[in-house]
Amino acid sequence: MIEIEARKEAASRTARLDAVFAALADPTRRAIIERLSRREARVTEVAEPFHMSLNAVSKHIRVLEASGVVERHRKGRDHILSVNTHSLDEVDGWIERIRCYWEERLDAMERVLRELKKDQTSGSKERKRGSR
Amino acid sequence: MIEIEARKEAASRTARLDAVFAALADPTRRAIIERLSRREARVTEVAEPFHMSLNAVSKHIRVLEASGVVERHRKGRDHILSVNTHSLDEVDGWIERIRCYWEERLDAMERVLRELKKDQTSGSKERKRGSR
Repeated sequence: MIEIEARKEAASRTARLDAVFAALADPTRRAIIERLSRREARVTEVAEPFHMSLNAVSKHIRVLEASGVVERHRKGRDHILSVNTHSLDEVDGWIERIRCYWEERLDAMERVLRELKKDQTSGSKERKRGSR
Repeated sequence: MIEIEARKEAASRTARLDAVFAALADPTRRAIIERLSRREARVTEVAEPFHMSLNAVSKHIRVLEASGVVERHRKGRDHILSVNTHSLDEVDGWIERIRCYWEERLDAMERVLRELKKDQTSGSKERKRGSR
């Protein structure tokens, strides 16, 4: 039972990562996120700076909402958009993991190099001693 | 001249971000990156764990190469793949910027709340003094 739950959780984490990375792969959507991370705003305010139809911007907003990066709530007649920064945590965590692997490899290589250098130094000392 | 260069640089940075985020938006491609960040490997080694044709994996590898996340070099007859971790720096930087905006907003809200609280406290002291 626990294993099935864990597998489900891993599958939905994978789907979330897919959706967030895909949402971030567009300059208009990244600009919307930058705008909203400074201040929540109405859909029309978000659309204003872009040279495209409100409909086109709305499509981008729907992609952002589906990915969980942007949230919508109502304030009277207005639809207010805001960024859910926690949605970026998993993405951040994934990149961090890649960096960790990489750094472990660099550390391992450094250790090997240090050992080689030590062996070389003691080897040349041995040779010097032998030549006396 | 400098402005044109700056605009070109911004445009290519945008294109790089688009390409890297799109490359990361697929579980097979993320698994390939995880694999390569531990150790560089031949194309056939990378393809091995996946239940798909070598051709399908090769397509994913080409997307990763086009985005700059994966690099290829030849060692004799073998094509060796490795991860270019610097390709993730810009992506990391972008997420970091969003977090900064967000934290600035939280700090500003906290300041306002503190001010409000201070005003309230001194206000209630004034009232107490007035009621004596």
